[in-house]
Amino acid sequence: MPRPVRITVVGAGRCDEDTASIAERVGREIARRGGVLICGGLGGVMEAAARGAREAGGTTVGILPGPDAADANPHILIPIATGLGHARNAVNVRAAEAVIALAGGYGTLSEIALALAMGIPVVSLAESGATPDVVTAPSAEEAVATAFELAEERRS
Amino acid sequence: MPRPVRITVVGAGRCDEDTASIAERVGREIARRGGVLICGGLGGVMEAAARGAREAGGTTVGILPGPDAADANPHILIPIATGLGHARNAVNVRAAEAVIALAGGYGTLSEIALALAMGIPVVSLAESGATPDVVTAPSAEEAVATAFELAEERRS
Amino acid sequence: MPRPVRITVVGAGRCDEDTASIAERVGREIARRGGVLICGGLGGVMEAAARGAREAGGTTVGILPGPDAADANPHILIPIATGLGHARNAVNVRAAEAVIALAGGYGTLSEIALALAMGIPVVSLAESGATPDVVTAPSAEEAVATAFELAEERRS
Amino acid sequence: MPRPVRITVVGAGRCDEDTASIAERVGREIARRGGVLICGGLGGVMEAAARGAREAGGTTVGILPGPDAADANPHILIPIATGLGHARNAVNVRAAEAVIALAGGYGTLSEIALALAMGIPVVSLAESGATPDVVTAPSAEEAVATAFELAEERRS
Repeated sequence: MPRPVRITVVGAGRCDEDTASIAERVGREIARRGGVLICGGLGGVMEAAARGAREAGGTTVGILPGPDAADANPHILIPIATGLGHARNAVNVRAAEAVIALAGGYGTLSEIALALAMGIPVVSLAESGATPDVVTAPSAEEAVATAFELAEERRS
Repeated sequence: MPRPVRITVVGAGRCDEDTASIAERVGREIARRGGVLICGGLGGVMEAAARGAREAGGTTVGILPGPDAADANPHILIPIATGLGHARNAVNVRAAEAVIALAGGYGTLSEIALALAMGIPVVSLAESGATPDVVTAPSAEEAVATAFELAEERRS
Repeated sequence: MPRPVRITVVGAGRCDEDTASIAERVGREIARRGGVLICGGLGGVMEAAARGAREAGGTTVGILPGPDAADANPHILIPIATGLGHARNAVNVRAAEAVIALAGGYGTLSEIALALAMGIPVVSLAESGATPDVVTAPSAEEAVATAFELAEERRS
Repeated sequence: MPRPVRITVVGAGRCDEDTASIAERVGREIARRGGVLICGGLGGVMEAAARGAREAGGTTVGILPGPDAADANPHILIPIATGLGHARNAVNVRAAEAVIALAGGYGTLSEIALALAMGIPVVSLAESGATPDVVTAPSAEEAVATAFELAEERRS
């Protein structure tokens, strides 16, 4: 038996009904084609996609950031609680043969970037993703000055 | 003795002389202010920043993706060979109190996104970073169809 | 539908026929009871256990240290290529609700110790596992002297 | 300038005064020889070793399991908060050129086993370390039966 195709779906942990509806259709279609749906295992896009896949009889894998499988949404058949924190994002996309991205925040953007850095293709359904909200600096010295200020603010 | 401020510098593993010159100034300024320079430990922006910091007498830490400390550039005083692959990007920015980003590719973009997802401030010196090069799809079903095609191409 | 029980089987990447036969029976029995077999995805005990589980119609997950799913043995239905190196040992056991250990080396010993550190129960089928082959030292100062010697040997 | 030798000290997060005194001497001697002390950054053996190293003017790196550098003991000059949970044990020893082990529990045993699996030499100062407290089973089938029982106990 050949291995089923593994598709990781990434997107926000909270989402509106329209996005959830699209995610659910993505999950359903992955299952209908005999693929395994992989996702981060939490809410929002991940939950809707897993629900769609399970309703179509598919297998769902949730690669969770925390150490507790009980955090997986109810549509995850096989939770993998990694305990890796944000580093699990790298595992989540590395596990895939292709990634489908819906609207999300910085976590989703990191998964898209990691997949592309690994050479894993990404198909996007989001009109626009998060744009990094960074402070810009005009020179090396001012960048370091700003970085020190921001670092010291976080300490206090 | 208070802990020195930890700044992670991210950017491309290969860069032109202008970018290297800016990175070197960033490293020098971090050291001049008594900070510890953290970076991914490899070439390009990472090497130039580490060289600048060492020339100013600073401490440099390189958080390497591979398992071998010998891969660190010669200006890294304390190499931390993680063996984590791309997941080391999460450690690289988590270690920082603030991140300074120069021009880079998807790896750099992932580090910026991961830092922002963790609530770590990012100061940017790049005019524009990598934009994710994703395939867009008009519907859930077409996204899955394209993802399966791309996945199967990678298998063969 | 309740989640299937997840059992991780750990053991050597190469093994004799007797051990393979026991591993195969472990895998078969996990599948017969409706459980999901998780393992490191490579050869030896991992391959035999996965073969047993697949022959009994079960689901097999391989959590691989390297970045390439093609390294999984042919009985792994869902390979998760982590790219984490030895740190994948922590994910491999964290994913389980219980661990079954067969004979193995230091990698297996690390998985047993990690599972116990996480509070995950370990059932052992090995008469005796690897015993750490460490150099002992009679005092703090001699320990450091020996550590420096060994470190310098590795550099050259 | 050649890179300083990197020694990781592992041991229990809580320890008696005798063990702390030995750990402190280990840290002091590492610093006196110009080495960098690496440890897990928390209490007990890690804190005593870091204190010894700092008192002798050395550099101390703490590779923490959690995401917050503020969890580091006060003698850690450069905290690396990984957020990796137990998977940080792999990074903690991978970073070293040699490991010195004092008395500890399963976490320490996992670090010793991981170091040996990676080919990194381990020097031990503990008379005896933790012995894995596993349940033994007489057959493959009974091992799986026990594993399922233990897994189900953990769910309830």
